[in-house]
Amino acid sequence: MVIQPLDSADNKMIRRIKRLNTSRQARIKSNATVVEGGRLLEEALAAGFQPQLVVYSPKWVERVEGRAMLTRLQARSTSLFYVTDRLFEELSQVETPQGILAVISLPRSVTLGDLLDKSPQPLLFPIALGIQDPGNLGTLMRAALAAGAHALGVASGTVEAFNPKCLRASAGAAFRLPVVSLDEGWPDVLRTAGVTIRTTAVDRGLPYHQADWTGSTALVLGNEGNGLDPAWYRDTEVVTIPMSPASESLNVSMAGAIVLFHAAFRRQEKGIGFAPPAMV
Amino acid sequence: MVIQPLDSADNKMIRRIKRLNTSRQARIKSNATVVEGGRLLEEALAAGFQPQLVVYSPKWVERVEGRAMLTRLQARSTSLFYVTDRLFEELSQVETPQGILAVISLPRSVTLGDLLDKSPQPLLFPIALGIQDPGNLGTLMRAALAAGAHALGVASGTVEAFNPKCLRASAGAAFRLPVVSLDEGWPDVLRTAGVTIRTTAVDRGLPYHQADWTGSTALVLGNEGNGLDPAWYRDTEVVTIPMSPASESLNVSMAGAIVLFHAAFRRQEKGIGFAPPAMV
Repeated sequence: MVIQPLDSADNKMIRRIKRLNTSRQARIKSNATVVEGGRLLEEALAAGFQPQLVVYSPKWVERVEGRAMLTRLQARSTSLFYVTDRLFEELSQVETPQGILAVISLPRSVTLGDLLDKSPQPLLFPIALGIQDPGNLGTLMRAALAAGAHALGVASGTVEAFNPKCLRASAGAAFRLPVVSLDEGWPDVLRTAGVTIRTTAVDRGLPYHQADWTGSTALVLGNEGNGLDPAWYRDTEVVTIPMSPASESLNVSMAGAIVLFHAAFRRQEKGIGFAPPAMV
Repeated sequence: MVIQPLDSADNKMIRRIKRLNTSRQARIKSNATVVEGGRLLEEALAAGFQPQLVVYSPKWVERVEGRAMLTRLQARSTSLFYVTDRLFEELSQVETPQGILAVISLPRSVTLGDLLDKSPQPLLFPIALGIQDPGNLGTLMRAALAAGAHALGVASGTVEAFNPKCLRASAGAAFRLPVVSLDEGWPDVLRTAGVTIRTTAVDRGLPYHQADWTGSTALVLGNEGNGLDPAWYRDTEVVTIPMSPASESLNVSMAGAIVLFHAAFRRQEKGIGFAPPAMV
C-alpha cells in the first residue's frame, strides 16, 4: 500500500468510533457498535455481519493473515480506513491493540413473541436482570450459547449485549445468541406460554439439581452485588447452588453457566439434543 | 492524621512493591505478594494472613470503613505507610484504585504427600497445567473452592497462584484453597494413591456426566489456547463437555467450574457433603 495512514484524530469517522466505544446512547442512536480484534471480527463475519467500515493500522498489515483478511474485506467492498498505529491506539480499548477494528450494525432485535413461536422446544432462556458488568454479561453469553440456550433475555437495568466489552468477553457468542429486549409484563407472557421462571439465590432456594430442567425454562440471573429484588423470590421458583462453606460466592456468569450446563445435562439424559438458536 | 503523605517514588519500600507487582521472580525470592483493594485485604485478614506492611492514601482515609480498617491494623502492630493518591496510583494495578494495598508473605506450600495424607476423602483435586492467564487461574480457584475442591495443583508452565491479578480474580479464594506445587512424577504418585486422573478435551472424550465423580479424582485443566500435550490424552481418562454446535468453546475456568460442580452434585446425590480444605 502506498497510501499514507491517517494520523489526525480530528476526523469525523474517528470521532464517531470514539463515541461508539464509550457511549451507550451513541450505539443505540446509530444502531451500531465496535468490534475490535482479528479473531472477534472473524467471528462477526462468520455469523453474517457486514461491517460498515474497517479501521486498520500498519501493525495489522505486518501480519500475513492480517493482509489476507483485508483482501477478503476489499472483495466484499467494505470501506477500509488506514490509520497510524498511534491513532489506532487512541481508538483501541484493549491492552495490546492488534490494529484492526470494525463498525457493525446491530442485528434486528428479536421479540419475545418471535422467540416463543419459533424456538425449538423445550426452551432454555437465561434472562439478565440488572447485570451491570459487560465482562460478566459477555462471559454469560458465551457459556449460555455453549449450554444450548436459545436466546438471552435482557431486562431493564442491564448493560447492553452489544457493548464492545461484552462482545469481547463473549468471544463472539454475542453474534450468534439472539438477544431479546424484555418489556414490562414479560413474566406474565412467559407464564402464559407455559415457561417455568426460575431465579437463583445465594441461599434459601431449592438445590438447583433437584429442580426439573427438561421443560421450557427461563432462568433469571441478577445483579452481581445485590442479587434480585425480593419480589422475584416470592413469585418464581428459587434455586440455590449448594457450595462449600469455605466459599463466599460465585460471580453471576459462573453461577449461570453451572445451572445452564446442568439443564443441558438433564436434557441429554432424556435424549433431548442441542437445538441451536435460529436467528428468529 | 497530621503526618504528610509520602510522594516520592524513590523510596525503597515503593520500589519493592513495584517489583512484587510485576515480577514473578521478585515474589518468589522474597516469598511475598501484593494484595490490593479493601475487600481482598479483608479476605486475606479473615483467612489469617498477617500483612508485612500496608500502604494507604488519602482516598482510603476518606471512607469510614477505611479508617476503621486502619485502626484495626494499627492495633495488630502492622506497619502503615501513608502515601499521596498520586503515588498510590503509580503502585496500583487496578482501573479505579481504592487507595489501599498490603504486602503479605506467601503461605507455606503444601506437598502432594500432605494433601493425600490429610485431606478429607474422596479427594477433589483440580490441577492447572500450563494455564498462563492469571485471571483464568483466579476464576478457576474461586469456582473450585465453591465446588468443594480440597486444593489446587499447579504444574509446570502455569502462572503462580499468588500472582496479584490471580488473587484479585479469585476474590479471595486463593487465600483459602491450598496450593500444591507439583514436581515431576506427580501422576504416578496420584495413581499409586488410588486417585483417578481425568483430563478435559474439546472433543473425543467421554461426556463428563457419564464418568464416575464420587471417587478420589484429579482433574487436569490445560493451557487456554493449545489444550494439553497429546500424551495426556493417552494416559488418562479423557472427558468432554458436550456443547451446542453453535458454540466455539468455553474458557478453561468455565470448563473447570462446570465439571467440578457436576462432581459436587454427584457427591451430594450419594450423601457425600462438602468437606472444606484443611490448610494441610
